[in-house]
Amino acid sequence: MGSLVNRVKALASANIRLPHALRAALFALALAGLVWMPPPAWSADDPLPSWNDSASKLAIVDFVRQTTDPKSEHFVPPEERIATFDNDGTLWAEKPFYFQLAFALDRVKELGKDHPEWAEKSPALKAAMAGDLDGVLKQGKKGLLEIVAVSHAGMTEAEFAAIVSDWIKTAKHPKFDKPYNALVYQPMLEVLNYLRDNGFKTYITSGGGIAFMRPWAPEIYGIPPEQIIGSSIKTKFELRDGKPVLVRLPEIDFIDDKAEKPVGINKFIGRRPIASFGNSDGDHEMLQWAAAGDGLSLQVIVHHTDDKREWAYDRDSHVGRLDKALDQAQSDGWVVVDMKNDWKTVFPPQ
Amino acid sequence: MGSLVNRVKALASANIRLPHALRAALFALALAGLVWMPPPAWSADDPLPSWNDSASKLAIVDFVRQTTDPKSEHFVPPEERIATFDNDGTLWAEKPFYFQLAFALDRVKELGKDHPEWAEKSPALKAAMAGDLDGVLKQGKKGLLEIVAVSHAGMTEAEFAAIVSDWIKTAKHPKFDKPYNALVYQPMLEVLNYLRDNGFKTYITSGGGIAFMRPWAPEIYGIPPEQIIGSSIKTKFELRDGKPVLVRLPEIDFIDDKAEKPVGINKFIGRRPIASFGNSDGDHEMLQWAAAGDGLSLQVIVHHTDDKREWAYDRDSHVGRLDKALDQAQSDGWVVVDMKNDWKTVFPPQ
Repeated sequence: MGSLVNRVKALASANIRLPHALRAALFALALAGLVWMPPPAWSADDPLPSWNDSASKLAIVDFVRQTTDPKSEHFVPPEERIATFDNDGTLWAEKPFYFQLAFALDRVKELGKDHPEWAEKSPALKAAMAGDLDGVLKQGKKGLLEIVAVSHAGMTEAEFAAIVSDWIKTAKHPKFDKPYNALVYQPMLEVLNYLRDNGFKTYITSGGGIAFMRPWAPEIYGIPPEQIIGSSIKTKFELRDGKPVLVRLPEIDFIDDKAEKPVGINKFIGRRPIASFGNSDGDHEMLQWAAAGDGLSLQVIVHHTDDKREWAYDRDSHVGRLDKALDQAQSDGWVVVDMKNDWKTVFPPQ
Repeated sequence: MGSLVNRVKALASANIRLPHALRAALFALALAGLVWMPPPAWSADDPLPSWNDSASKLAIVDFVRQTTDPKSEHFVPPEERIATFDNDGTLWAEKPFYFQLAFALDRVKELGKDHPEWAEKSPALKAAMAGDLDGVLKQGKKGLLEIVAVSHAGMTEAEFAAIVSDWIKTAKHPKFDKPYNALVYQPMLEVLNYLRDNGFKTYITSGGGIAFMRPWAPEIYGIPPEQIIGSSIKTKFELRDGKPVLVRLPEIDFIDDKAEKPVGINKFIGRRPIASFGNSDGDHEMLQWAAAGDGLSLQVIVHHTDDKREWAYDRDSHVGRLDKALDQAQSDGWVVVDMKNDWKTVFPPQ
């Protein structure tokens, strides 16, 4: 009960209108058996069945009701209902390291079979060809760029999309022995659907690669390519045998992380999200930006607290470090999802 | 009649399926009074009332029918019905020079009142402050960047949007003495609506500034900010007195013109348009890219042939030069709209 009461206190002290906080408080007390409350509206037709009836769930449902009920003072017209979601650690898992890095290492290993000379040329490529992740990371940013150049550039956009599609169908996560896109979070898939059912336009705003996500994310998340924003390398228009192609260049175009997330949102969407979901300090500025709008808004952090079903990590983690954003979430009353206690299930059923 | 027959011949010789070309040919002959044809479907409820019943109009209507009729072999699912439109010269006028340049010069003149020192510092700014466009252009790219830095950067995104909104409400076009956004093309507004009514998602893909268009274009064109793509300068996320803002920097981010147009389309939309509309060589690569898709596609060039109601210009024009794209339009059977003969009206009624 302690953590619920704390969360309710956080909600109540936050910049959230009284009815919202009040209902959350009552709800928490009801859960604790201290007051009687009518069953919540979703008991009949629950839009978020994989969520326990927690304060997090209540906050999400209450936000949607307040922004979509035409009689509510916080009603938002459908065209302004923009919701942005980080991907790694928010919509799918990100441990033991970003899945896109797994893709890159697999590619270097595969391609390296025909390029033994790479090992001479680059310590990072040599480490990647040997499957030695630590060896790759030791080479820092320069090493990573060499990996990107080999694994992500030099082909057309269409060719790259086909390579990613093949990989996502065949590669398996080392811990779960499942395809990587089976490691999406079922409760978050429900949130995506729930928001869309209520007229929200859902976007991915990921530090991951835009071209890495677009081949598989639309089917898994129900988000079309034009609503997937991410990091990119440069591309170049060329006529090859008279046929136009876009060639991927080994040069960074945009890193959609940290303070660049609101920049990317402004560039691609041109509207401020009213709901934002993240899990790490990489999402901090996006959440700040979304919280600074005029009307009611919702900030949600997925807190990885479940070392049995997934992983437990926050302030000290190398991947998905959650530190400053967690502080602000606590001081400003953002919703912090406790994965272990708020989610009935983590991954979709087989 | 000559030009119609030529256009029909171009259509017939082009990479367009027979039924389409055949109907266009019959239609042209019917217009010429040589064969009888039943009145076209739109005579009862014409989706394009400002268009004369020309081969251009027929080609557009026929394309929409073929891609939206579930029984057609060229049926395209709604989510793939992407249509991209250039703005300057395609959706609104661009003479005597790009309206955004008029905005920039107005801003420099206005701000220059408090900055007499600019005249010492920069010949381009000095010329702009004196309203001397030729003097500005003589300073080349460096001069234009100085104009951009003063007129487009140094403020937040929200402040810039407010400045543009004020300007578009008050500034008048020198020839027509009307607000600039009254100089949109009525026939093209009808095409936008017609495509949307048929499940198309309409995008602007302009060499003009994304932040310059978003404050007014959604209302005029019915296109939301997230479907407006254009050139941009860099922005930077900052906390000012604890409040997040995006500050506009005097540094080019992306020039959405020529070979960069398909690059921008791929980045922002991630799908290939099936219909593309342009008017100049700046749109050539976009049209090539759109034409290179697998299914039926529509390429339209607005040819400025009307020196009475608007302007007549193409191969020799400094602004909106149409040369190579016109050649390819003729050889590949793209639709070339003859503004003078195809449009009943050019601008919307008052």
